[in-house]
Amino acid sequence: MLKDLKQAVWEANMELPKNHLITLTWGNVSGIDREKGLMVIKPSGVAYEVLKAEDMVVMDLNTGEKVEGDMRPSSDTATHLELYRAFPNIGGIVHTHSRWATIFCQLCRPIPPLGTTHGDNFFGPILCTDSLTDSQINDGDYEQETGFVIIETFRKLQESGFLKDYPTLSGRAEDFVPAVLVPSHGPFAWGKSPAHAVEMAIVLEEVAFMAWHVLSLDPQRPDMQRQLLEKHFLRKHGSTAYYGQVGGHA
Amino acid sequence: MLKDLKQAVWEANMELPKNHLITLTWGNVSGIDREKGLMVIKPSGVAYEVLKAEDMVVMDLNTGEKVEGDMRPSSDTATHLELYRAFPNIGGIVHTHSRWATIFCQLCRPIPPLGTTHGDNFFGPILCTDSLTDSQINDGDYEQETGFVIIETFRKLQESGFLKDYPTLSGRAEDFVPAVLVPSHGPFAWGKSPAHAVEMAIVLEEVAFMAWHVLSLDPQRPDMQRQLLEKHFLRKHGSTAYYGQVGGHA
Amino acid sequence: MLKDLKQAVWEANMELPKNHLITLTWGNVSGIDREKGLMVIKPSGVAYEVLKAEDMVVMDLNTGEKVEGDMRPSSDTATHLELYRAFPNIGGIVHTHSRWATIFCQLCRPIPPLGTTHGDNFFGPILCTDSLTDSQINDGDYEQETGFVIIETFRKLQESGFLKDYPTLSGRAEDFVPAVLVPSHGPFAWGKSPAHAVEMAIVLEEVAFMAWHVLSLDPQRPDMQRQLLEKHFLRKHGSTAYYGQVGGHA
Amino acid sequence: MLKDLKQAVWEANMELPKNHLITLTWGNVSGIDREKGLMVIKPSGVAYEVLKAEDMVVMDLNTGEKVEGDMRPSSDTATHLELYRAFPNIGGIVHTHSRWATIFCQLCRPIPPLGTTHGDNFFGPILCTDSLTDSQINDGDYEQETGFVIIETFRKLQESGFLKDYPTLSGRAEDFVPAVLVPSHGPFAWGKSPAHAVEMAIVLEEVAFMAWHVLSLDPQRPDMQRQLLEKHFLRKHGSTAYYGQVGGHA
Repeated sequence: MLKDLKQAVWEANMELPKNHLITLTWGNVSGIDREKGLMVIKPSGVAYEVLKAEDMVVMDLNTGEKVEGDMRPSSDTATHLELYRAFPNIGGIVHTHSRWATIFCQLCRPIPPLGTTHGDNFFGPILCTDSLTDSQINDGDYEQETGFVIIETFRKLQESGFLKDYPTLSGRAEDFVPAVLVPSHGPFAWGKSPAHAVEMAIVLEEVAFMAWHVLSLDPQRPDMQRQLLEKHFLRKHGSTAYYGQVGGHA
Repeated sequence: MLKDLKQAVWEANMELPKNHLITLTWGNVSGIDREKGLMVIKPSGVAYEVLKAEDMVVMDLNTGEKVEGDMRPSSDTATHLELYRAFPNIGGIVHTHSRWATIFCQLCRPIPPLGTTHGDNFFGPILCTDSLTDSQINDGDYEQETGFVIIETFRKLQESGFLKDYPTLSGRAEDFVPAVLVPSHGPFAWGKSPAHAVEMAIVLEEVAFMAWHVLSLDPQRPDMQRQLLEKHFLRKHGSTAYYGQVGGHA
Repeated sequence: MLKDLKQAVWEANMELPKNHLITLTWGNVSGIDREKGLMVIKPSGVAYEVLKAEDMVVMDLNTGEKVEGDMRPSSDTATHLELYRAFPNIGGIVHTHSRWATIFCQLCRPIPPLGTTHGDNFFGPILCTDSLTDSQINDGDYEQETGFVIIETFRKLQESGFLKDYPTLSGRAEDFVPAVLVPSHGPFAWGKSPAHAVEMAIVLEEVAFMAWHVLSLDPQRPDMQRQLLEKHFLRKHGSTAYYGQVGGHA
Repeated sequence: MLKDLKQAVWEANMELPKNHLITLTWGNVSGIDREKGLMVIKPSGVAYEVLKAEDMVVMDLNTGEKVEGDMRPSSDTATHLELYRAFPNIGGIVHTHSRWATIFCQLCRPIPPLGTTHGDNFFGPILCTDSLTDSQINDGDYEQETGFVIIETFRKLQESGFLKDYPTLSGRAEDFVPAVLVPSHGPFAWGKSPAHAVEMAIVLEEVAFMAWHVLSLDPQRPDMQRQLLEKHFLRKHGSTAYYGQVGGHA
C-alpha cells in the first residue's frame, strides 16, 4: 500500500545524508496521505546505506497504531503524528540533529532573521519551544509531549497576531515559519511534501550556520530590516510570487 | 543565438555548486555580448542537476526585455542589467548567497584587506553598499534598485580618489575591486568573462572566510601593509604583471 | 589466526578516514578476543590506502608480547592493553587525534552534556584525565602510564557514586561514558566491538563540535536538564530501551 | 632531464588540492637535486587539472636561471632558491595559502605548541617572520627578500640556543621546526623530499586549525607541558624513535 508515498518518503530520507544533515542513523522524514489518514515514516535506527523504500512503516494517523511494516517505526513517531494532527496544511516532516540548528537548540535560543536567505523561507525568527517539564519527560509519553510543546509554540505565535502589520496576508503560523527548535534536542522542519520538508531543513541549517557566525562577531546584531524580510518572503510565497518558474512549489 | 555565450554562462553557473558557493538553486551567473547588446543569464529557480546550456535566457541590455528563452530569467535579472549598463569593462556577473561573504553582508561590514590572497585580487576593502530604503524596496523595482546602490557605491569610491596615492595607476573603481556586499542579502562579483566572475566569487569567499577568523581572534586587527597590497595586486594586474603565463587572463 | 577479528579490526580502522576522524596515519583501532586473551591492533604508521586485514598485529593481553604479525604494532599499544585489562566489558578501542575532541584535550576541559545527541550515548560529561607527571612521561612506559591515568579517571568516577541518584541503574562507569580526553593529546573511545568503538568516536566528535560552538557563544551555558539526559540514555540503553530494532547493538 | 624528480614534484603538487590546501592555482611545491645543483618547481598560475609532470620547470640553484621548461616558473621561485641555499638538509619546499595557517599569518602570530599533534612534528612554536620593510618589498627582489626574512628567523632561533635544555639533541633549527609563517601572506613548509614537505604542510594546517579553536575559547591557554612535547617529538625523530615501521621517513 501507499507505494508512491513510501518512495517519496524514502527519497526524502536519503536526501538527509546527501545534504550532510545526518550523522549515523539520527534523523527521520515522514509523509502523509490525508485522504486515507495514514502516515509513512522511516524505521528506527536503520543505517541509510541499507534502507529501502519498502522498509518504510505505515501508521494510522487517528489511532497511532502501526498499519504496515516489519520494523519498528522511528522512535520520534509520536511527535510526527501530533504535528500532522495539529497542522492541517503540512504534507511532510523532517527531524534531524543537524549541527548548526542543533547548536541553537543547545543554546535554547531562537534564530533571528538576519538576511534574505532567511526571509526567502521563514517569515520571522525560527522559534525555540519551551523546555519540557520533568513530568512531561517522565510521566507522559515523551515523544508525544514533544509534539505538544511544538504545537503550543505555534498556537502562541498565532495568538500574538504575528501578521497584524501585514493586512494583505493571512494564514497559519506554522506555514509562515516552517521549522522549530526543541531545546537541548534538535530541529523539526516541515513543508507541503516530504521533499519540501527536507528543503526547509537544508535552509534551516544554512540560516543557522550564518546566524551563529554573525552573532559570534556581533552579539548585539539587530534583526534585518522588516521591509526586506517581507519583500523576500513574498517574492517566493503567495499570489504575488515571482521567483522560480510558474508551477514551482515555492 | 549566442550559442557560445550560452555555453560559457552555463559552464560558469555549473562551477557554483562545484565550488560550494551555492545551496539549492540560490545564485546565478550572467554574461554579455557587448556588440549585440544582449545579456545571457540563468533561468530562475531551476535545479543545477537538470540545468542545460539551452535553458539560458537572453535579455536585451537596452530594453530589459526577454529576447529568447522558454523560462523566466533569474529574479535578480534587473540587478545584472544595471551593472552591465554602468560598468563598461565587465563581461560576466555572479550573484550567490555563499556562506562567508553573506555573513559579512549580514554584518553589514566591509571585508578589510588582511593578506596577499586579498591583495592579489582586490585593491582595497570589499565594500558593503548602503541599505536600500523602505521606499526603494517597496515602491520601485527592488532588483533594479539593488543595482543602483551598488553603482552608487563605486561612484563614491571613484570620486574619493582611491588611486590618488598611486600615480602610475588609473582605471575604474569596479575593475580594481571586482565584488561588493549587499547588506542583509549576499555578494555580487564580476570579471572580464563569466568564468572570471566566478573566479572572483571563489576568491571573495576564501578572503571572507579568513577575515572572519582573523577578526574573531583579533577584533582590532589593522589592515595589511599598504606596500604589500600594492605589490601583490600589481604582480597580477597591469603592464608590470609577472604572475601566471603570458596571455593568462589575470 | 583470528581471521574474523583481524577483518573486523581492519574494517573499523578503515572507517576512521571515511568518517574524517583521521589525518595521515594518526589513529588506531583494536579489538579483543577475551577467551583467547589476544588483542588485534593496527600496525604503526602505515598509510590507510595500503593497509590490509592481514597487516593487523596480534598481541598477548597478559604478557604484552607480540604473538603474530610482520610489523610493529601501533605505538599506543600499551595504552590499549591496559584499558582491556581494566575494563572487562569492552571489546574494541579507538584512539584518534580527531579535530574537535582533540581541541577539548588541548583545552584540558571536559565536554559537558548539552543535548540529547550527547545523552543518547554518554551518561554525563566526557571527562579529561589528569595530566601525566614529568616522571610518568619520562621514567616509566609513557603509553602504559597513559592507560593508567585513564583507568584512574574512571575509578574515581565510579567511587564518586555517579549513579547514586538513579536507583534503577547499576554498572561500570566506563560503560556509561565510553570515551575520555587525554590532556594535550587526543581522545580514546570504546565499545562492545571495534565497530561500536568507532561509532562512539564518531559521536564524540559530533558532540565536541557542537559543545565548542555552544560554549563559544555562551561560555556559562549550564548542562542540559538532568531528566532529559536520563530519558535519552535509557531510550537506547538497558532493559527499557526502545530505540532501534530489536537485537540492535545500542 | 631529472625525470624522477619532476615526477616527484608533480605528484607532491597534486597532493595540495587533494588535501584541501589549495584554492585555484595558489601554491607550489619544489624539489632539489643537490648533486646536480638543480631545483624543479611548478610553473606559475597553471590549473591543477591540466598540470603534467613534464610541465615542471628546472632552475639552476647557483645562478637562479631557468635550465629547462617551456613555461615561467612559479612567481615564488626566488624564495624557494634562497631556502635551498640556506637550509642544507631540506629536499622539498611547499608554499600555500592554506586557510588556517594563513589566518595565523594574517594575525602575524606564531602557532604555539598545544598538543602532541604539534609535538610529533614541530619542536616548539611555528614562528612568524618579521614583516618585510617597504624598501624590501619595492626596491629589491620581493620574492628573494621573502626568503631572506625566513632565513633570518631561523638564524635567530639557532642563536637563541633553542636546544640548550636538551643536552642529547643537536641539529639545525629549520630541521626541528620545518615550517614558518610569513606575515599577511602564507606559510612555507619543508622536508626531506617534496612528499615530506607536503606532509608537513598538512600537519601545519591541522595544528593551525586546532590552535585557532583553542585560543578562541581560552585566549590565555599556556603551551603544552614541555616534557610531553619532547617525548612526542623524540618518539618520531632521532636515534630513539619508535613510531612507524623501521626505515619509515619520519
